[in-house]
Amino acid sequence: MTREHLVAQIKQKRSYLCVGLDTDITKIPGHLLSEPDPVFSFNKAIIDATKNLCVAYKINTAFYEALGVKGWGAMEKTVNYIGNDHFKIADAKRGDIGNTSSQYAKAFFENMPFDAITVAPYMGEDSIKPFLEYKDKWAIVLGLTSNAGAKDFELKKMITDLEDLEEGAHTIKHQANYLYEMVLKTVTEWGTTDNLMFVVGATQADEFTNIRRLTPGHFYLVPGIGAQGGSLKVISEKAMNKDCGLLVNVSRAIIFASDKTDFAEKAGTVAEKYQQEMKSYLH
Amino acid sequence: MTREHLVAQIKQKRSYLCVGLDTDITKIPGHLLSEPDPVFSFNKAIIDATKNLCVAYKINTAFYEALGVKGWGAMEKTVNYIGNDHFKIADAKRGDIGNTSSQYAKAFFENMPFDAITVAPYMGEDSIKPFLEYKDKWAIVLGLTSNAGAKDFELKKMITDLEDLEEGAHTIKHQANYLYEMVLKTVTEWGTTDNLMFVVGATQADEFTNIRRLTPGHFYLVPGIGAQGGSLKVISEKAMNKDCGLLVNVSRAIIFASDKTDFAEKAGTVAEKYQQEMKSYLH
Repeated sequence: MTREHLVAQIKQKRSYLCVGLDTDITKIPGHLLSEPDPVFSFNKAIIDATKNLCVAYKINTAFYEALGVKGWGAMEKTVNYIGNDHFKIADAKRGDIGNTSSQYAKAFFENMPFDAITVAPYMGEDSIKPFLEYKDKWAIVLGLTSNAGAKDFELKKMITDLEDLEEGAHTIKHQANYLYEMVLKTVTEWGTTDNLMFVVGATQADEFTNIRRLTPGHFYLVPGIGAQGGSLKVISEKAMNKDCGLLVNVSRAIIFASDKTDFAEKAGTVAEKYQQEMKSYLH
Repeated sequence: MTREHLVAQIKQKRSYLCVGLDTDITKIPGHLLSEPDPVFSFNKAIIDATKNLCVAYKINTAFYEALGVKGWGAMEKTVNYIGNDHFKIADAKRGDIGNTSSQYAKAFFENMPFDAITVAPYMGEDSIKPFLEYKDKWAIVLGLTSNAGAKDFELKKMITDLEDLEEGAHTIKHQANYLYEMVLKTVTEWGTTDNLMFVVGATQADEFTNIRRLTPGHFYLVPGIGAQGGSLKVISEKAMNKDCGLLVNVSRAIIFASDKTDFAEKAGTVAEKYQQEMKSYLH
């Protein structure tokens, strides 16, 4: 999907909602378990109930891999069911040496019609580049994540200007930045605002203004609203740009709004609540 | 697999070879393509030809995911075929927020009998902990990788002692370390030498002495020998510890030693060459 197509969908639906299909088979309504493919049946009903309220779906690959071959099959059926007017994200956190990342790109961009994949930056340029070589496909690189562990490395300070480091005196003259800032600045050089997004957790609201300053034109995939406690209002005020620039993901609060036969209807109700709030923030 | 079992295998076979099953279907001998499951048939023959020469197999999940449901099935069959006297590594580079990493752990440790999974550290503690909660299972965390991209972040300098950073003067009093060193030091606190290993690329020989100093008791999974150019001799001299402490992976140089009907025999010949060299380095 092109950026223009995505922005047009946001304007048309007045929504920047991404519905997260973290389909945990132990949490889906019991009556679905007798279906031939309970996970796909669940996803299909959720998609039907939410498709006019959201612009993206995010499939969390872990929940599908946990079911083995049958789970991988449910993922393939789901992404094929979604259709071409939604931005389809494989939340897979992949990333490996170049020849291996190329195989992941093949898995998600050629054999399945995903528009984007989430990628971990630790291994550097050749681990990310293969995902940027596909026309109208996107790499969504981890920037500052929503979880507690973000403090362990992402929020540690780096020395950004090595030539000013005097080994004896241990003195640096230039400002030190967080690792996540170095990741944003470095990774933006490898792609464009048309094929590169960043994951920025809604729980990291203090950093949102700084993040938008560093990457003014990029879209962010924002998890952490709902179950994790981030505020839709705060992050929308701090980080919306002229093309919106946000895809805000909600998973559990929507898809597990009810564990009874009305699960899809209730998912639609919660999705509409988010969409209405988003509409009020869109200029 | 316990550490004791792994060390006993190394002593018995006089080998610390890990055979990497990066089974690219476009590179396997043509006569296998008419088999019902060419990837599994290839792997089975490679395993039969190398099992007495190696102590571990590493399945690179990307090459299986690139084949969809059929590929995932070939991975399941392969890991089940290997048996309990080899250390079975899912080279998957996973890592996500806690509830998602738990699903990956379930996929690789419960539904498949892998002993270990490779994990990316960027997202911090809660992304790694779920893999450490299984008895006799291992997380192999990326330390310093073998690829060119290692220079982008892993080999960037961090400020390790924040209280000594004076924001105005930009002066630090304590020594700055590479990001990978901070990863090694921090991650070792989350596990033990019985459930935690690190990925250290053989192409990073200059850092091996330092890495062994930082983590004297841990095993390393070492890729980068063979096609990528690392030296088995150098890394063995620099990083072997009293339990050996090394699993050296070779993928392409072994499994694609021949693209004809003699591929398994030739794979065995190359594996034996590595095993014989390893035998000469083991005390």
